[in-house]
Amino acid sequence: MAKGNLLSVREDVRVLDATLRDGGLCNDFFFTDEFVSDLYHANIKSGVDYMEFGYKASKDLFDPDKFGKWKFCDDDDIRAIVGENDSPMKIGVMADVGRCDFKRDIRPKNESPVDLIRVATYINTIPVACQIVEHCHKLGYETAINIMAISKERTEDIREALDIFGQTPVNTFYIVDSYGAFYPEQIRRYAQMYLEYADKYGKNVGIHTHDNQSLAFANTIDALPEGVSYLDATAMGMGRGAGNCRSELLIGFLKNPKYRPEPILDFIEKHMLDMKASGVQWGFDIPYIITGQRNSHPRTAIAFQKAHRKDYRNFRFELMDYD
Amino acid sequence: MAKGNLLSVREDVRVLDATLRDGGLCNDFFFTDEFVSDLYHANIKSGVDYMEFGYKASKDLFDPDKFGKWKFCDDDDIRAIVGENDSPMKIGVMADVGRCDFKRDIRPKNESPVDLIRVATYINTIPVACQIVEHCHKLGYETAINIMAISKERTEDIREALDIFGQTPVNTFYIVDSYGAFYPEQIRRYAQMYLEYADKYGKNVGIHTHDNQSLAFANTIDALPEGVSYLDATAMGMGRGAGNCRSELLIGFLKNPKYRPEPILDFIEKHMLDMKASGVQWGFDIPYIITGQRNSHPRTAIAFQKAHRKDYRNFRFELMDYD
Repeated sequence: MAKGNLLSVREDVRVLDATLRDGGLCNDFFFTDEFVSDLYHANIKSGVDYMEFGYKASKDLFDPDKFGKWKFCDDDDIRAIVGENDSPMKIGVMADVGRCDFKRDIRPKNESPVDLIRVATYINTIPVACQIVEHCHKLGYETAINIMAISKERTEDIREALDIFGQTPVNTFYIVDSYGAFYPEQIRRYAQMYLEYADKYGKNVGIHTHDNQSLAFANTIDALPEGVSYLDATAMGMGRGAGNCRSELLIGFLKNPKYRPEPILDFIEKHMLDMKASGVQWGFDIPYIITGQRNSHPRTAIAFQKAHRKDYRNFRFELMDYD
Repeated sequence: MAKGNLLSVREDVRVLDATLRDGGLCNDFFFTDEFVSDLYHANIKSGVDYMEFGYKASKDLFDPDKFGKWKFCDDDDIRAIVGENDSPMKIGVMADVGRCDFKRDIRPKNESPVDLIRVATYINTIPVACQIVEHCHKLGYETAINIMAISKERTEDIREALDIFGQTPVNTFYIVDSYGAFYPEQIRRYAQMYLEYADKYGKNVGIHTHDNQSLAFANTIDALPEGVSYLDATAMGMGRGAGNCRSELLIGFLKNPKYRPEPILDFIEKHMLDMKASGVQWGFDIPYIITGQRNSHPRTAIAFQKAHRKDYRNFRFELMDYD
């Protein structure tokens, strides 16, 4: 795998914008078409390699009246934004194990504007995840596998999962820090472990971080020199709870001159400040530190924020009882 | 030098709270006595090892009517808060080369509540910094040297500075990322370089970070396993521009059970949220990313924030012309 230092360009780097997908968890995917179209064009101009439009959720399981269209990512809705996507940027969607009807809803690649399908799975749902990967490859898609909540899993189970996925046609393994619990020292170790299997099976490794402990960007750029090459980011870090690695930090950091931060900065100025001001909540704050330090799901911190609570000490003790 | 990993306790670690000193740059040191007293007690209960009360600035150079008392740190003002400081926590002040009258204003240690004097210097003011160090040691103080703005200095000059300071009685060398410009990969390299001279001369190494690129905490904990042991932090990250490494992140991270986050969380709940709401400005935000990425002094970003500007692209281009 390619490695590098702070002065070199890593031609294997791919930036994936997950603003609509992870950010959609903050506003139930109710983005305006103007927002989505402006983000699409900003990403292209900034050199972003993949834009993830949202989830491929089943309309049998989720009421389409209660969510914006990017929860479902119908091909026609994507086409209405991207046309024939006459750009080098690829289009992604996420298929969440147990929340999608992949056989019905994912159409052959040659009928779809989508290029990449990322399969999100827990470690105990690997067999279905493998089915989805196999299915998508037969239809002609590129795929990635996002094994979630690994900070709660045993190392030997993660190794076995990587060995299983290595034998599927999946293209990329993603390190996912669902709880924002990992420190850079750990991320470097996980990167080495994922790369061991990626090298064996000819896969790429990506990383998706959360900012609970203000480490989303640090963990991303600390994984990079180990050989991790697919890097997730979102505009202004929009994403569940503490949010994600910020595009404006990552794009400004990368040395390849194809990455330009200005279009993302313009997009933030035009859309994201108003989004925040309108009351959509995300981003680093003290309750997320507390769940991140305890390697705990952020749902309790999200509820704390929504209730406008500030009694941090109580929250910390509640969490001890909760776990 | 001691090293360690994520599960071990490093007995050599010392946490220094710089809330009043670096935070004072945001409100001209106008803290209420209640704030200072509550911070003092919170720090003791949280296990903080040093509390820096502010600067030892000369009243000939700075008008005492225009600044709060912690710009000057008269011994009597510190005594009014700490009494005889009947606690294991040590008291620090900062002497800024060219802004203090150290021969007049620093009294013998046995007449003062202060334990540690940190000398802040640029690389071109080393001779005076050495004089201050020698003077303070003769008076009985512990000292540290903070070489500022090293992200703009040549490596060979920093090496020479460390070699010169190594031959003084100074106790601790501080790595100072004044512009929030360093990435973890660089901080680890600087830590190794500082430790090379620290080991040679029997000194400690500390780190003081800024959060321009959301890396203040990451850089601090990435320096730690290299052998850096004096760690600066401030409550809620209060400090100039993007602010500092947050106490609540650092104290919650450290494994030594003497460090407890609850008192700092209570302090934040009682004081810092109101401080922010009152309009005192600090903390990570987009203009600081832009100065940090360019390794530029944050003064332009502070002015951008004060003017409530949001035109990030223009700011970025202005900065290119400015440098």
